[in-house]
Amino acid sequence: MSGRVVEGAHGGGGVESRELVRDLFLARLGNPVLNRLDDFGLVDLPPGRVALTTDAFVVTPWRFPGGNLGDLAVCGTVNDLAMSGARPRYLTAGFILPEGFPLADLEEVVDAMARRALQAGVEIVAGDTKVVDSGMGPFITTAGVGVVPAGVVIAGDRARVGDVVLLSGDIGRHGIAVLSRRAGLAFRTEVVSDVAPLGGLVAELLASGCEVHVLRDPTRGGVAGTLNEIAAQSGVEIEIDEQAIPVVAGVRSACDLLGFDPLHIANEGCMLAVVPGAEAARALAALQGCPEGQRAVMIGRVRHGGARVVARTPLGGRRLVDAPAGELLPRIC
Amino acid sequence: MSGRVVEGAHGGGGVESRELVRDLFLARLGNPVLNRLDDFGLVDLPPGRVALTTDAFVVTPWRFPGGNLGDLAVCGTVNDLAMSGARPRYLTAGFILPEGFPLADLEEVVDAMARRALQAGVEIVAGDTKVVDSGMGPFITTAGVGVVPAGVVIAGDRARVGDVVLLSGDIGRHGIAVLSRRAGLAFRTEVVSDVAPLGGLVAELLASGCEVHVLRDPTRGGVAGTLNEIAAQSGVEIEIDEQAIPVVAGVRSACDLLGFDPLHIANEGCMLAVVPGAEAARALAALQGCPEGQRAVMIGRVRHGGARVVARTPLGGRRLVDAPAGELLPRIC
Repeated sequence: MSGRVVEGAHGGGGVESRELVRDLFLARLGNPVLNRLDDFGLVDLPPGRVALTTDAFVVTPWRFPGGNLGDLAVCGTVNDLAMSGARPRYLTAGFILPEGFPLADLEEVVDAMARRALQAGVEIVAGDTKVVDSGMGPFITTAGVGVVPAGVVIAGDRARVGDVVLLSGDIGRHGIAVLSRRAGLAFRTEVVSDVAPLGGLVAELLASGCEVHVLRDPTRGGVAGTLNEIAAQSGVEIEIDEQAIPVVAGVRSACDLLGFDPLHIANEGCMLAVVPGAEAARALAALQGCPEGQRAVMIGRVRHGGARVVARTPLGGRRLVDAPAGELLPRIC
Repeated sequence: MSGRVVEGAHGGGGVESRELVRDLFLARLGNPVLNRLDDFGLVDLPPGRVALTTDAFVVTPWRFPGGNLGDLAVCGTVNDLAMSGARPRYLTAGFILPEGFPLADLEEVVDAMARRALQAGVEIVAGDTKVVDSGMGPFITTAGVGVVPAGVVIAGDRARVGDVVLLSGDIGRHGIAVLSRRAGLAFRTEVVSDVAPLGGLVAELLASGCEVHVLRDPTRGGVAGTLNEIAAQSGVEIEIDEQAIPVVAGVRSACDLLGFDPLHIANEGCMLAVVPGAEAARALAALQGCPEGQRAVMIGRVRHGGARVVARTPLGGRRLVDAPAGELLPRIC
């Protein structure tokens, strides 16, 4: 389909829609459920608790160092499922495409989705495509279904005094990678997005037998936003040691250049884990045994106090870590 | 929130995002699962087959006679689930909002979603909001989860020679209602969209004990597009009696004015059912017993022949009914 572009008729539900589905989507994402071309996908789920989630992806530009919109659309939703402790199983994908978008570019996006779905062990079982006026998009909204193992209860309100906070890797790469390609802001950096599916990392952590209270991937709002959410949901104070948080040099210098705090920058391939203090060593070892968690570190602990996040400074002081406010980094995912 | 508008920060994942979620979304769509504010919703499903589906909704204008984007976002996905024979249970919703969109208008859309969710017996258990540059949208992508009763096997490839085709109501109202409010095309009509959830209608049909082979709601592509899909999937010829298909006067005259075939116009509140010929009377009675199916009629039958749709004309001739091609009616849902 090289040289061709998305046309209005591709979203009309007629002959052209069916050609696009068959020649572009099914050729890359096809599986026995999707290939049936019904308006629904039928799957069998084991009895028990199921995690459901959705995310709309509007990143601009749609291609960035380390990935594209398609990588995000699969990994972002897979990771939200994984943060419940669920094994991610099935995704749906709704595409909103601008008229005139090159089909070769759409192929690149869908190829990335296919690669990430394979890597994450999920199948895309239902989809929809709409075409809108040119000048905006493409946008992809994915929803996900995961199966929560018996006995696993992981949620944002389960952080307890005495727990420790672990971080699976270095922070800030996704946001900086996207910003480095944004019109009007382009700067030179070697930073590539950390976008990756985290279901395997979570599975290893749970398989270690470690008790896990909270898991969350610090996407929009960064580590600061995510820790503030957990502190608010659990009604606890979280104290972090800023110097313990790994930040690669490229992210550090880009943040200096742009006046950003790495704690506010979006990530798409790392996670925060809150586990009982007694489990810290076992949990860290489990994380560090996975490719996605080699750089895992302990960055803080849960304390008595108001629902807030504080950082210990190098000189031994304490400063409040606010959730980012205002339009800090729009359309990062 | 009257007088205020969507701002970039509402999609940033920070303080403003959380305010929007709490004050606008949770106030209308809240339930114990959604209220937890985790990045996932946990639900219990009975063992067995589950139907998954998704649709992106980009209708323009977003408000039309008989409903708005929010009505469509719930009913469209509920209906795709219902067409599998499933009982619709849970939805997820991803919002893509243009900067500057009035919050009062967003409230109107979300109010419609809340009403329709209640009517359809579904809960919205996960959501996401992104903000994009002004000038396009709002868009909503919903995904749905439904539970398929044991023994129910309904799919597009199950139409058999000897089956009959039933239609639950009159056609063409949704497409004409949307077009009547479109810039550059405005015309006077009393036609209101048929948008409605069809899960109750399907449940009654199945409760009648009638064997059902195919269900499908003729949305984009209309009755002609949908019947062509079924004919292709099942490898059969479908013959319809054009005069049997109910079309209200307002739709008829608007189609005459605009040069459209009512068979090509999108619907959002009626369905096609393919059932064995011996079941026709029982199925029709079940449909006609529901408010959404009072005007149900038999419109055709499944015959030996190529994968195509033909219509018997008033004079006894036969004409081929093509699926619509080209950009007939963009952004109707």
